[in-house]
Amino acid sequence: MTYILIGIIGDSETDNYEELEFAEKLGEELAKRGYAIICGGRGGVMEAVAKGAKKYGGLTIGILPGFDKSEANPYIDVVIPTGLGWARNSIVALAADIIVAIGGKSGTLSEIAYAWMYGKKIIAVKNFGGWAQKLAGSRIDERRDDFILPATTVKEVISYISSFLNKTKKDS
Amino acid sequence: MTYILIGIIGDSETDNYEELEFAEKLGEELAKRGYAIICGGRGGVMEAVAKGAKKYGGLTIGILPGFDKSEANPYIDVVIPTGLGWARNSIVALAADIIVAIGGKSGTLSEIAYAWMYGKKIIAVKNFGGWAQKLAGSRIDERRDDFILPATTVKEVISYISSFLNKTKKDS
Amino acid sequence: MTYILIGIIGDSETDNYEELEFAEKLGEELAKRGYAIICGGRGGVMEAVAKGAKKYGGLTIGILPGFDKSEANPYIDVVIPTGLGWARNSIVALAADIIVAIGGKSGTLSEIAYAWMYGKKIIAVKNFGGWAQKLAGSRIDERRDDFILPATTVKEVISYISSFLNKTKKDS
Amino acid sequence: MTYILIGIIGDSETDNYEELEFAEKLGEELAKRGYAIICGGRGGVMEAVAKGAKKYGGLTIGILPGFDKSEANPYIDVVIPTGLGWARNSIVALAADIIVAIGGKSGTLSEIAYAWMYGKKIIAVKNFGGWAQKLAGSRIDERRDDFILPATTVKEVISYISSFLNKTKKDS
Repeated sequence: MTYILIGIIGDSETDNYEELEFAEKLGEELAKRGYAIICGGRGGVMEAVAKGAKKYGGLTIGILPGFDKSEANPYIDVVIPTGLGWARNSIVALAADIIVAIGGKSGTLSEIAYAWMYGKKIIAVKNFGGWAQKLAGSRIDERRDDFILPATTVKEVISYISSFLNKTKKDS
Repeated sequence: MTYILIGIIGDSETDNYEELEFAEKLGEELAKRGYAIICGGRGGVMEAVAKGAKKYGGLTIGILPGFDKSEANPYIDVVIPTGLGWARNSIVALAADIIVAIGGKSGTLSEIAYAWMYGKKIIAVKNFGGWAQKLAGSRIDERRDDFILPATTVKEVISYISSFLNKTKKDS
Repeated sequence: MTYILIGIIGDSETDNYEELEFAEKLGEELAKRGYAIICGGRGGVMEAVAKGAKKYGGLTIGILPGFDKSEANPYIDVVIPTGLGWARNSIVALAADIIVAIGGKSGTLSEIAYAWMYGKKIIAVKNFGGWAQKLAGSRIDERRDDFILPATTVKEVISYISSFLNKTKKDS
Repeated sequence: MTYILIGIIGDSETDNYEELEFAEKLGEELAKRGYAIICGGRGGVMEAVAKGAKKYGGLTIGILPGFDKSEANPYIDVVIPTGLGWARNSIVALAADIIVAIGGKSGTLSEIAYAWMYGKKIIAVKNFGGWAQKLAGSRIDERRDDFILPATTVKEVISYISSFLNKTKKDS
């Protein structure tokens, strides 16, 4: 069975308790539904999501920039060091079936740009600033007709994901 | 002598005559000063800049996404196919000493994000829409204190480049 | 729990029944011991190993060269398209904890070279020609003191893996 | 005018005076004929070839593994840091029109494997051991009908290059 991979991108360093709690709760809900998490494998929201997912036996995959598996946070099951530096951001965006952005600085921005290029559905959480908030509800360019979907609750994120996946199933 | 590499990013497909003329004129002025051009090697502003540079014997380098040298526009002297797809955007940003953005869609946005991560000075031309215009005068995140410099004329772009390079020389 | 990743490299196109049977049997034995499989995700020995692993509920990860998840063989659980072309060979070698080579042409050779650079233990199956057979028992260069370990049975491969992992555990 | 790029791969660390002299002489002869050098940009034969090329005004391009331009040897004109680690070996092989291998350890082996995959003509100098010597006169796999051409003098290398380029011109 091929896993559905939900790509989580966003702040790798944050001490915003509400943001981390949101990410952890999101990880829980994704795991309950059998989705796997793919992310950059490091700290902040990536760690919080993975931590939440592991509470419910979810599978977590970390695509690291460096050469050393110890870069990964402790909740990553499949640790993939790439040695590619930040060029690895392209892989996270490409391997995910759907992208969820939470907060986010320049690295997150590059991942949103890639996800748009690769035709991936993007959900942006508006609550925690960063590029996720700035781009929620907008389009990266006119090559696509759809928008980056704005979400403010975990429930909304899950609801978007479910409806995308149902639509994909019907289309194929 | 190691070349100073000016990275040109922006619309790979455009029929905006003024935008292409701006890019070509910029290529001329860069070549006159002995700077080499590094870019994605394809059409639009990348081709126009390279065309301008070649009028004055400038050196032009194209970092292609695919495997085939014939993807390059006819004004590229050093054709480097990478086979990396859009992950090559990271290389353009990293190899450039200074970045100039003109127009630009999702690919340009990823390159601006990378240039910011890599600490490169970024000049954004405001005249032709796209991400260059949207981001001119702003910061990608708070990790850097400086701004993406807004320019509206070729002269301004050249002036920014000269002052950066003079500053770098004095600092080292 | 972080998975131990056994990297399988070798012929992506082969109709040698014994080779495919060896790979499938190896996949079974790896899965029984809780090891995950990481490979290039495509046909030949990669498919056979993954098929074997799935019989015993093993986890299989495919690092694809292209952009399209449908490139993966049907036994891959975690499909990671990289869009990097053959540069992805570096990731397979780097992400694996131990490498097993079976047969193999130029792509396998590049992966063996990378695995050597990255300090990974390499086991080469001697039965099916290719670079695995040619390099079994030899060293790639004098930077390492050890050898590419020659194996002729699945049991030997498993035995090498167990002893490496026990040694690693004791060392750390 | 698009440059013909001769890819030089081989020992990045060597104090074999004859090997370095061979590489420097080769760089001189390539530059005299207007060919540009593309290489990994670092020490050993890469530095010696670039040094020779610069004596005759040749153009030299270095594709670096890391993020820092200062990694390049002092004879590189166009310094391209990739940040890709050893995955950059794929780019050197792909961007070169013809590959010349001199000595060489595991990194060189990966580059020869890539050059073979990408259909590049490969000339291997037999005088200085390493993978160049081991593979001279042989084939990497049966997917290609030709051989890695063995050379023992600079004159032979140049002669092979000239005949390849003449053949390519006639074919196209």
